Amino acid sequence: MNASEHLVQLGREFHRRGWALGTSGNFSAVVSHDPLRIAITASSLDKSRLVPENILQVDSEGRALEPAAGKPSAETLLHVAIVQRLGAGAVLHTHSVWSTILSDYHLGHGGFFIEGYEMLKGLSGVVTHEHREWVPILENSQDMKALSEETARLLEENPKIHGFLIRRHGMYTWGRDLDEAARHVEIFEFLLESVGRRQMMEPQY
Amino acid sequence: MNASEHLVQLGREFHRRGWALGTSGNFSAVVSHDPLRIAITASSLDKSRLVPENILQVDSEGRALEPAAGKPSAETLLHVAIVQRLGAGAVLHTHSVWSTILSDYHLGHGGFFIEGYEMLKGLSGVVTHEHREWVPILENSQDMKALSEETARLLEENPKIHGFLIRRHGMYTWGRDLDEAARHVEIFEFLLESVGRRQMMEPQY
Amino acid sequence: MNASEHLVQLGREFHRRGWALGTSGNFSAVVSHDPLRIAITASSLDKSRLVPENILQVDSEGRALEPAAGKPSAETLLHVAIVQRLGAGAVLHTHSVWSTILSDYHLGHGGFFIEGYEMLKGLSGVVTHEHREWVPILENSQDMKALSEETARLLEENPKIHGFLIRRHGMYTWGRDLDEAARHVEIFEFLLESVGRRQMMEPQY
Amino acid sequence: MNASEHLVQLGREFHRRGWALGTSGNFSAVVSHDPLRIAITASSLDKSRLVPENILQVDSEGRALEPAAGKPSAETLLHVAIVQRLGAGAVLHTHSVWSTILSDYHLGHGGFFIEGYEMLKGLSGVVTHEHREWVPILENSQDMKALSEETARLLEENPKIHGFLIRRHGMYTWGRDLDEAARHVEIFEFLLESVGRRQMMEPQY
Repeated sequence: MNASEHLVQLGREFHRRGWALGTSGNFSAVVSHDPLRIAITASSLDKSRLVPENILQVDSEGRALEPAAGKPSAETLLHVAIVQRLGAGAVLHTHSVWSTILSDYHLGHGGFFIEGYEMLKGLSGVVTHEHREWVPILENSQDMKALSEETARLLEENPKIHGFLIRRHGMYTWGRDLDEAARHVEIFEFLLESVGRRQMMEPQY
Repeated sequence: MNASEHLVQLGREFHRRGWALGTSGNFSAVVSHDPLRIAITASSLDKSRLVPENILQVDSEGRALEPAAGKPSAETLLHVAIVQRLGAGAVLHTHSVWSTILSDYHLGHGGFFIEGYEMLKGLSGVVTHEHREWVPILENSQDMKALSEETARLLEENPKIHGFLIRRHGMYTWGRDLDEAARHVEIFEFLLESVGRRQMMEPQY
Repeated sequence: MNASEHLVQLGREFHRRGWALGTSGNFSAVVSHDPLRIAITASSLDKSRLVPENILQVDSEGRALEPAAGKPSAETLLHVAIVQRLGAGAVLHTHSVWSTILSDYHLGHGGFFIEGYEMLKGLSGVVTHEHREWVPILENSQDMKALSEETARLLEENPKIHGFLIRRHGMYTWGRDLDEAARHVEIFEFLLESVGRRQMMEPQY
Repeated sequence: MNASEHLVQLGREFHRRGWALGTSGNFSAVVSHDPLRIAITASSLDKSRLVPENILQVDSEGRALEPAAGKPSAETLLHVAIVQRLGAGAVLHTHSVWSTILSDYHLGHGGFFIEGYEMLKGLSGVVTHEHREWVPILENSQDMKALSEETARLLEENPKIHGFLIRRHGMYTWGRDLDEAARHVEIFEFLLESVGRRQMMEPQY
């Protein structure tokens, strides 16, 4: 399975699981690091119908190598920033209900910690549930240049995070390859739902 | 895929996703604008078993063109009102749990705003999450003539909305064609669940 | 599709939808009214693996006609009571999370009303959302003879109901045939989830 | 279907149902009691892709019989402790949202009772809903030797339980064979969700 087929498979699966509804979500994988070539979903697609022809290649400026093949996702520059800053091999942006409401609830503190959950060990390099994962939140914007610079700044300040939220706009996570990045999506979705539901119960008695 | 097949596919999918249980939900697509001909689901059907023979054609008065083929949905006049008032090419009425309870919760204010969510950009013509979408709510009625007149009045007063709720009776949305209308269903369902769950968390701290 | 095949199909579907987990749930259809012959699921089965051989026939005393074929559901006498009292053609007992918790929450009042929901029109004979459906709750018991007598008394006192709950034990509903009874399950499950979630939101503002 | 195929089928099903996401969950079945041989899932696998080659055999010390075939689950010693202490034929460790948050909420009391639910009768040997099931909770640890000794102590003190939770780390349950253990997972998941949602409603009125 090549990168395009893998991205198509993930896009359809994430739609089915409610993490990429409407035309939300965008997904990428690094094809080559030097020169930088990233395979990424085209803009504004229904992910339930994704086909390999919807995957485009972009360069380190986020420009399509074959502009006639379609327009890359509007958020391409965020993918590039994450790849360049962290050396990630794949970047996945999903947009679930739980990531959306937690990104709103915790905005005032700039993020929140997830701590003490065994499931954290599914994040790359984490070896104990005692790990304290900071999940930062960026304010949303339609200015993608500004948002990608915010992302770069965020990653510089928080080099050890595994993902972040954009307010009322879902989650970004990544990995050394698509398998690891997809596992991070599954891990974070579980953790966000757990943290969200836990908070809706009465306080510890 | 013709309009009947498309309506059948959507009806079965919406049943599977819990948006058209029992015999709830009705779905239509404009076949011709002049004279007005609308393909619409017949009355009182289990949407999980929908077949093309269950799709009837009606005129601008909501009358079946071939009365022997079945009785059009009781809510046909609402579909006609939306098509005539807005020039929509497709109208979808779904009936999910979240649309049902929010239509009850917010009735006292005549509706509610959804604002600041990136997912709003999935609604036709919306280009920023800063968009403020008014979701009006009509009181429910069994008098379909009166309810369709209420609908026409509502659309006159709120020409820019993308959908509305009927109290404890689900949602109407539409689009220039069935693909766009179906995307609007998915977008609104996501937003209604997000808004509903957000409200169930403690207030912003 | 004969009654056994239909019961098998419903059992598997209800398991998949979370309404008949573990070995819970039992389902029946009247094969003949005089003498009374009811096809019913055998006792203690995993409904995800139901096969036609698991459907037995019982008489008006709930006795298996072919005892060697297996033991009828422990709750057979409740099915008989509902068929005899109401002339139902099919009886379905499901056991969802929402029916379980609402049957506990409302026990102190002996039941609760569902009122004002359009979805109520999916119940046989209901023509307006203004219908007021009383959902009575029986205290649970392992004495099936006593519980079936309680059921008969309940139906005598509430001849117009479409279903009832047993405390922390799920729901009974019925219909003139399996299609109608299955629709009633779907309608009630929607209404119970809606009523339950509505109650978890803040009060009307 | 042999033990490996059965474990693979269960692992994939539990992933699909959200009870073994990321690389969480581990599953075992006793192949022989004397000498003790247990078939168990290898460490750190995505359960949605489980294949029979991922099932290893271990001895009474949790050592792989064929070390070249892979590394047994890190939690193998807990499986061994449960098999040795109770004579179980199968042990299943799942990791759902509800088990995770209830294990956190009730930690301060060392566990919680589930009582009065008909679904309890799906647990082996329970014949009435009046049964009072104690669900103990262990504090989580990365020291598997210590955690397996804690497990042995817990089972000695609570010989009649059917499962226990580890804080923010999911559930262990078991049975005389894989079918019974899998039924216990389904029963407990239903009960945990019911207990959790019930608690989120207003108190009994």
